[in-house]
Amino acid sequence: MKKGFVSAALIAAALATPAVAQMSVEDQIETRQSAYQFAAWNMGKIKAHAIDGSVAYDEKQVAAAANAIAAVANSGMSALYSRDSANDRAENTRLKPNFFEEPMKVQEIAVSFVREANKLQEEAAGGDKAAVARQFAKVGETCKACHDNFRAK
Amino acid sequence: MKKGFVSAALIAAALATPAVAQMSVEDQIETRQSAYQFAAWNMGKIKAHAIDGSVAYDEKQVAAAANAIAAVANSGMSALYSRDSANDRAENTRLKPNFFEEPMKVQEIAVSFVREANKLQEEAAGGDKAAVARQFAKVGETCKACHDNFRAK
Repeated sequence: MKKGFVSAALIAAALATPAVAQMSVEDQIETRQSAYQFAAWNMGKIKAHAIDGSVAYDEKQVAAAANAIAAVANSGMSALYSRDSANDRAENTRLKPNFFEEPMKVQEIAVSFVREANKLQEEAAGGDKAAVARQFAKVGETCKACHDNFRAK
Repeated sequence: MKKGFVSAALIAAALATPAVAQMSVEDQIETRQSAYQFAAWNMGKIKAHAIDGSVAYDEKQVAAAANAIAAVANSGMSALYSRDSANDRAENTRLKPNFFEEPMKVQEIAVSFVREANKLQEEAAGGDKAAVARQFAKVGETCKACHDNFRAK
């Protein structure tokens, strides 16, 4: 697969147009928070297995957790970000309005999240604990990049 | 793969022992609700594409949605159900205490959810809209079975 094609596919996955009728702002916020909480739960499991070592490394559980994170990354989250859903217009969200003023930055981070989450899924399937630990950190960097840029304290 | 082996693997996936230190009851409830909300969002997308026809059938988006539902089913949700997390002891949940009195029923439904969600993932990857619609209904039946038995009105 050519590099250019991969990039295009990743952008399509990260920025897919809404698949269903526009949801209410409240539903968008609740759904995107749910997706990230589900991803965070699974990040926590991988951390326990591959980084902290607080549980014995279980290849199948780590692979299931990585599948979950990749599924979130590839689920077309952009459908859950209408302009009215930032914290200058909506409640119960920390999304800053600059999210909508810096589309190239958003795209860069979204594409990185998809790419690194897909790579984590591959590494987890491969079963190499050290490689999983390294790739876990890369995914975490993409989470942090979005939080640092677009999430209010 | 032999039938007996598949069943054992499905049971293991559905009923995996907790992978991390016990979470608080509040976190269990919030995390499991997040997982199901993420799954429900993705069920809604498949419904729009394959049942209602309110959007043109997009094989990649349907496959991504089915991956998300399967990822939830295979994520070891049982770790999020401690006895103290039912609605006789905890708030913000509709989980009925009989969930803990009928483990065979719970197991049967959990295993069905994993099996049917995995099958939906396969059908979605295959791209046959009618097959996806049929299998979507099967997954929905397993959701309903759990709600009917273990979720308060």
